[in-house]
Amino acid sequence: MTKHTALVSETQTMDAMLRARAARVVPGGMWGHLNAARLPEGYPQFFASAEGCRVRDVDGREYVDFMCSWGPVLLGHRHPVVQAAAEAQAASGDCLNGPGEVMVELAEDFVAMVPHADWAMFQKNGGDATTGCVTIARAGTGRRKVLVARGSYHGALPWCSPSVAGVTTEDRAHLLHFEYNDVESLQAAVNEAGKDLAAILVTAFRHDMGRDLELPTREFAHAARAACDAAAAALIIDEVRTGLRLDTRGSWEALGVRPDLCAWSKAIANGYALAAITGNDRFREAATKVFMTGSFWCGAVAMAASRATLRIARVTDVPGHIRAMGMRLREGLALLASQNGIAIRQSGPPQMPLMLFDADPDAAKGRAFCSAALRHGAFFHPQHNMFLSAAHQAADIDEALEAASHGFKAVLDLNSRAGR
Amino acid sequence: MTKHTALVSETQTMDAMLRARAARVVPGGMWGHLNAARLPEGYPQFFASAEGCRVRDVDGREYVDFMCSWGPVLLGHRHPVVQAAAEAQAASGDCLNGPGEVMVELAEDFVAMVPHADWAMFQKNGGDATTGCVTIARAGTGRRKVLVARGSYHGALPWCSPSVAGVTTEDRAHLLHFEYNDVESLQAAVNEAGKDLAAILVTAFRHDMGRDLELPTREFAHAARAACDAAAAALIIDEVRTGLRLDTRGSWEALGVRPDLCAWSKAIANGYALAAITGNDRFREAATKVFMTGSFWCGAVAMAASRATLRIARVTDVPGHIRAMGMRLREGLALLASQNGIAIRQSGPPQMPLMLFDADPDAAKGRAFCSAALRHGAFFHPQHNMFLSAAHQAADIDEALEAASHGFKAVLDLNSRAGR
Repeated sequence: MTKHTALVSETQTMDAMLRARAARVVPGGMWGHLNAARLPEGYPQFFASAEGCRVRDVDGREYVDFMCSWGPVLLGHRHPVVQAAAEAQAASGDCLNGPGEVMVELAEDFVAMVPHADWAMFQKNGGDATTGCVTIARAGTGRRKVLVARGSYHGALPWCSPSVAGVTTEDRAHLLHFEYNDVESLQAAVNEAGKDLAAILVTAFRHDMGRDLELPTREFAHAARAACDAAAAALIIDEVRTGLRLDTRGSWEALGVRPDLCAWSKAIANGYALAAITGNDRFREAATKVFMTGSFWCGAVAMAASRATLRIARVTDVPGHIRAMGMRLREGLALLASQNGIAIRQSGPPQMPLMLFDADPDAAKGRAFCSAALRHGAFFHPQHNMFLSAAHQAADIDEALEAASHGFKAVLDLNSRAGR
Repeated sequence: MTKHTALVSETQTMDAMLRARAARVVPGGMWGHLNAARLPEGYPQFFASAEGCRVRDVDGREYVDFMCSWGPVLLGHRHPVVQAAAEAQAASGDCLNGPGEVMVELAEDFVAMVPHADWAMFQKNGGDATTGCVTIARAGTGRRKVLVARGSYHGALPWCSPSVAGVTTEDRAHLLHFEYNDVESLQAAVNEAGKDLAAILVTAFRHDMGRDLELPTREFAHAARAACDAAAAALIIDEVRTGLRLDTRGSWEALGVRPDLCAWSKAIANGYALAAITGNDRFREAATKVFMTGSFWCGAVAMAASRATLRIARVTDVPGHIRAMGMRLREGLALLASQNGIAIRQSGPPQMPLMLFDADPDAAKGRAFCSAALRHGAFFHPQHNMFLSAAHQAADIDEALEAASHGFKAVLDLNSRAGR
């Protein structure tokens, strides 16, 4: 018996009913990364509401949320200051015949906050921003080859989607690959591109699904910068997943490396749909030449939300707070694992943590852990990096650790059933 | 002297100040189709608010709006029912760890409203939807060639952008072209694609910038359908610009032609950022295989707004109302032109009209007309199709015609100065 059982009839949950309806009118019942079929048993597909660091599913079950809408929620769900800024803007106008004053202010905010940025442009999807950076780099250099790390995720468009269904060979004709953090393989790809090198496109850290997260080495970051400088190519950092969580100036600033172009999205408007490209003056003219636009890209409400989000992230040192909360979670999980004699690996920046189990090739332990923790009120992910928000406080982390203790018990049960 | 002069200091308008600030932090001051450099003299770049069919710029000048945010605003700016639906949803949650019940309801709404649709998926940009349709068609057919009409606009991604800055040849390797409404050229392209024909992608009518709009002929529409049937390819209608304005069932329904896949955006949520793909069961499995996703694609607020928009569009026959208002505008413009002895051409569906001047190769007449009409309170466009909304009433049209009369006077002045 779990504390949730009383709320939910096992046979006919709202979630199950909605899944049945969705199966009829949405291909596969749900698309992409939000399809709950990718999640462990018991995870809901449908959600009703959220507040702070708590999310509630359509059956009224509440969880301490460690996905934060897969990244967008940085300050906590429905942060009152962000909501007020958005509502104030909505009262006059959102999507008009052109931008509002808020677009200029937001571009100024980005330029002031991000040292490499001389300018900014805004879009709706992370993929709009990564695609835009690549297009601007090509326009600015007059070259074609773009180097990407094998396995890195840069969006779900044909040129970068992790699936090749519906993709043609030509969509990826000018991509060359290297291994993240491997300077030698990067140099080999640079050599292969030769005089056609337009850009190196790299995530702020290695966050490929299902494997230990890996921070960039200083050597790798500087090698990428040096290779772009030597070839007059563009260094593009994909901050879509990381932006504002690690360092409001840009995730590689502490390494002493600045990109020429940077793609932002997810957290920059605390859940409102927004993406951004920042760039330096070397690529300003190219950014002017490229035709990039969208019907809703001037939406003023998301921009007002973003201004509030950026201000709070800077002024209250959100990266520092969520780093501290992430460390509390990490240390608590390590202690619980050790007390239970279970070998785990924790990786990534504490703000975006991942916990994997040793000797768990099919992620059975990870899934058992997550399912049990979910039943006790914590929403973890077994294979994808998680996200903390500024709304997580010590008491929330401790409550989640209590849920996690049930997760570790479930892994012990699994091990004993498997004779491990 | 115009009625606006009193409000605005000519030397230092808010618009001018914002343009100067934007020039520093946004490449070119503004991107894409919303860059006011593309518009006649006197047009504002920055907007402050809107209500109904009126939009107001940052200098407090108000206009009867015939662009409707370049399409998204179908029911009028800040329609109270849509706003209430959006606000009610926002009070519980928007972008969560997965979709809300509203996603299922909205997919059901589309399936009920659109005869060809067995399913629906949602995105943020029109380009997400057109790209998704092409990708699904390729996945479903296992083929590559996509036929598009020369000059048609399907979005601003490298494969379809009207600019080639930053675009590689390979981005468009599998596109073949035909002339809109030209069955022979369509058949030639079909023959050229041969066994590799994945899809014919076509806008609901021909709305290329700067030329007379052209409705599809029945013969052309049926030829496109027949060619796809014969080759087991996908007929994709791009309804991004037209959706809900001409016929809520789909713009080709009255022609007796249904697509396999359809791309929607702009008007479907009355200004909230949303796009949709609808498809039939032939392409359901392909739509399941393709990996398409976005951080904000489950945003529940835009979906709640869309449900309200679809309901109002159907129940109150919005296409019928805006058609009547468009006819009133068209007849009024024709009368004024005739009274002034000026030869004009009006084209397109009345809901999305275009007026061009005869013997106006550089659009000087169109620009003079629009500038003068703008000064008198009507926001027209000289070369792009315009948009009407359900908020336009007869009195608004008549007020705009009064402004248009000043536009025709400006054309007469231009003609007399040019000795024409």
